Amino acid sequence: MGGDHGPQPVVEAAAAALALYPQIEHIFLVGIEKELSAKLAALPHDRSRLSTVHASEVVTMEDKAVEAIRRKRDSSLSRAVDMVRDGEADAVLSPGNTGAFMAAALIKLRTLPGVDRPGLATVMPSRHGKFLILDLGANADARPRHLCDYGVMGEIYARQILGVPNPRIGLFSIGTEEMKGNELTLEAHKLLKDSPVNFVGNIEGHDLFADKADVIVADGFTGNAVLKSCEATSHLVHDWMKEELSRNPLRKFGAWLATGAFRDLKKKANPDEYGGAILLGANGICIKAHGKASANAICSALRIAADAITRQVNTLIIEEIRLTHEKEHPAQPAPATSA
Amino acid sequence: MGGDHGPQPVVEAAAAALALYPQIEHIFLVGIEKELSAKLAALPHDRSRLSTVHASEVVTMEDKAVEAIRRKRDSSLSRAVDMVRDGEADAVLSPGNTGAFMAAALIKLRTLPGVDRPGLATVMPSRHGKFLILDLGANADARPRHLCDYGVMGEIYARQILGVPNPRIGLFSIGTEEMKGNELTLEAHKLLKDSPVNFVGNIEGHDLFADKADVIVADGFTGNAVLKSCEATSHLVHDWMKEELSRNPLRKFGAWLATGAFRDLKKKANPDEYGGAILLGANGICIKAHGKASANAICSALRIAADAITRQVNTLIIEEIRLTHEKEHPAQPAPATSA
Repeated sequence: MGGDHGPQPVVEAAAAALALYPQIEHIFLVGIEKELSAKLAALPHDRSRLSTVHASEVVTMEDKAVEAIRRKRDSSLSRAVDMVRDGEADAVLSPGNTGAFMAAALIKLRTLPGVDRPGLATVMPSRHGKFLILDLGANADARPRHLCDYGVMGEIYARQILGVPNPRIGLFSIGTEEMKGNELTLEAHKLLKDSPVNFVGNIEGHDLFADKADVIVADGFTGNAVLKSCEATSHLVHDWMKEELSRNPLRKFGAWLATGAFRDLKKKANPDEYGGAILLGANGICIKAHGKASANAICSALRIAADAITRQVNTLIIEEIRLTHEKEHPAQPAPATSA
Repeated sequence: MGGDHGPQPVVEAAAAALALYPQIEHIFLVGIEKELSAKLAALPHDRSRLSTVHASEVVTMEDKAVEAIRRKRDSSLSRAVDMVRDGEADAVLSPGNTGAFMAAALIKLRTLPGVDRPGLATVMPSRHGKFLILDLGANADARPRHLCDYGVMGEIYARQILGVPNPRIGLFSIGTEEMKGNELTLEAHKLLKDSPVNFVGNIEGHDLFADKADVIVADGFTGNAVLKSCEATSHLVHDWMKEELSRNPLRKFGAWLATGAFRDLKKKANPDEYGGAILLGANGICIKAHGKASANAICSALRIAADAITRQVNTLIIEEIRLTHEKEHPAQPAPATSA
């Protein structure tokens, strides 16, 4: 209910996803029943695999994260996460308030065994392909251990969902050399080097799109800064280009002839096919679609949710995190499972 | 000597700057004398205000920062900084190795009284103007105090050099609300709020170019990440655009008609007029030109160096930093000047 375009694109995406992806057993549309049913009535869909679940409240984009979860207990966002917690669903997807969604996931689902902090990950286009970047802000004050865990979780995601056979894991830093960075990345560099992942070292800002890594790891503050700065730059350049191209009739005519180029450029810069971010390390598959996501983007995100379930991303994360931590503390008899 | 294009653009810029800016009393070209003289001979210039100073070594872009300063004592970079330390020059400009230049400045010049850590600052274009951003990596592990000092120093630079009457100071963070950020920015937010600067709160990545602040303050790791990510995005979008526009004859023809738009766009995205970064807080005016800087960009950077001297940027920084720290600790009788 709380996405920028309300439930319309979500309802459309659900109907489409059921037709496209037979591996999706059932989709529950959580929200104000009357609205959802009205929208569904207008769409052909597989009734046996689609149902609505009523939730009377809506978390808005302006609501404060934790407060929204505490106060609006019957919001679509809260209820959808509840369904995963209660085993009624395997994954939850929301185009709503990011902070509230992450808070709901953390409070209600908690983390996978062995994972201290989940990381929000998204796919960004690179010069000749794509890469996964995390954390985008689930955890603003990361410790070296968290960055290493992001590497492990990102590796599994890249392998299982993006289909990269041996994902290269890079650490975002301010220089490519091993000794360049801040205290956090210098320490994380050592942990990643000793971890089982295919660590390719530091990736600096200038090399962000240079296809040097399939997964780029950063603390939540840096990841958020990098992602948003890139988006802001891309928007600025596009807007300036539009401005310059409409400055006189000759330029306008030229731009009109080359329209296809600008359309293709836009598609390259904002691909719909990975429409969302995933909260890796949460105890349940949690997909955050963009607030402005189109039905197409949400439909892709639903496929990713299904893939994450069938390809057992979370089971693999638990196993790999256990191995990584064991390797680090080989002296301990066994990973402590509490007394 | 150590810039990407060697001494040629520097020599050209020096000759031009003397003709353009009468406020520049004298320029010393530091480097391999024979090379410099040969290049000078080919250029008309004011001989009474331009001289060469021999330095036999060159710090390359591959040299490690501190090592380069320790080992290559007779490098042009080192010798030029020496001249400021020894009072023979008021400012130093280099298009060479950034790390080595900052190391030389810190080791040889140290910081202004009251300043704990200098910040590397540069001007970036915004949607409708420009803004100063610092630190770009002089100090990867900043404390809240440093971020506040960057605000104070940036404010003086914006006022004195960029001509902004009452500069708005913003703090880079991962959300616009006061309580969004990491431990560092949350603490720095409080200090900036209590400081004498015109603090406008957090600026998040999406608002980087939204003209909400004249100075944006960040720790060196984040500033470096943001600047380089923006540059990488801009390059990627430009390259992709070129690719798309040359994909077929129609697009090529359209692009050719609109050539002016792309030229103007490039000028907007990479303005030469602030050609460099300044190490604010160093005990001496230190300007770092881009390694690939054109003679034009270096000439602008020379004007900025001259402005920073005549408009007493460093004297004002000392005074303002003193006032800020006094205001924070009003109980103390006087700023401690050591026993």
